[in-house]
Amino acid sequence: MNEERKQALQILKIAKGQIEAAIKMIEDDRYCIDVSNQILASQSLLKKSDLLILKQHMKHCIKESFKNNNEDEKIDEVIKLLTKMIGK
Amino acid sequence: MNEERKQALQILKIAKGQIEAAIKMIEDDRYCIDVSNQILASQSLLKKSDLLILKQHMKHCIKESFKNNNEDEKIDEVIKLLTKMIGK
Amino acid sequence: MNEERKQALQILKIAKGQIEAAIKMIEDDRYCIDVSNQILASQSLLKKSDLLILKQHMKHCIKESFKNNNEDEKIDEVIKLLTKMIGK
Amino acid sequence: MNEERKQALQILKIAKGQIEAAIKMIEDDRYCIDVSNQILASQSLLKKSDLLILKQHMKHCIKESFKNNNEDEKIDEVIKLLTKMIGK
Repeated sequence: MNEERKQALQILKIAKGQIEAAIKMIEDDRYCIDVSNQILASQSLLKKSDLLILKQHMKHCIKESFKNNNEDEKIDEVIKLLTKMIGK
Repeated sequence: MNEERKQALQILKIAKGQIEAAIKMIEDDRYCIDVSNQILASQSLLKKSDLLILKQHMKHCIKESFKNNNEDEKIDEVIKLLTKMIGK
Repeated sequence: MNEERKQALQILKIAKGQIEAAIKMIEDDRYCIDVSNQILASQSLLKKSDLLILKQHMKHCIKESFKNNNEDEKIDEVIKLLTKMIGK
Repeated sequence: MNEERKQALQILKIAKGQIEAAIKMIEDDRYCIDVSNQILASQSLLKKSDLLILKQHMKHCIKESFKNNNEDEKIDEVIKLLTKMIGK
């Protein structure tokens, strides 16, 4: 597993812990703004892990695609993903 | 627990399951774009639960604040949260 | 015009200037990343003006709605807007 | 000018028109939610033009960078940009 994937994996595990904490906060009837901030913290980590996955995708898979002459297809795939990430 | 909190709780639990799936996908060395789409799916759910928390906050806590004449403070709190949600 | 609207107006005018600059940058065939950063700067300002509009909406219109007992309708309207802002 | 840049340019010009409309709406004291929806429409166009710029950057500049063996630098540049786009 390359370095970026390792980091993304570790960050996802922390994000999972934060969602578990948010679930507990709702069950304990905690204040809305605090719950929401907790959810936002996990969203922030998911974005980080997304960017790491994307970085290693570009460094490895996109690089490979230029060798194999199927880069246009791969770039379209990335742009389609980014469209979802960024929203409309 | 009010209806929106119940829904937010249920959605958070599904989001947690999706992050667990994303973790497994990285451990199984699955294709980057698929991993990223899985993470995006959980982010989408987190946004939904965030909006539900916010909705019930406005319906209950903000409503209460107008009675107690501390609505300005509460509105500032919401706007501060929204700034984080929307990004800069 | 209240203070938030005045600020939002001023920020929108700056954002317009930045988009004009981005247009000129593309016409001058400037480097992609620089163009994109310019567009991002204007997006950041649009978010700021959006939040200001929303803040004064909550301070004035939502406040009014609690007096008129149509707050549920107004809150649904805000949440619908936020859903668009935050994305899905 | 390549196809994506042409499209991005055209979209930016429409976005500029929409911001001008939003400015007029505030000056005419129009309803907050309508103003905000107008601003959101222009943000949506800015995202579209951003993605077009990015697409052609990947198709042309990143492609070039693989030939020149400075792809790592160029990929880092894109990821830095995406981090700003996606928010934290």
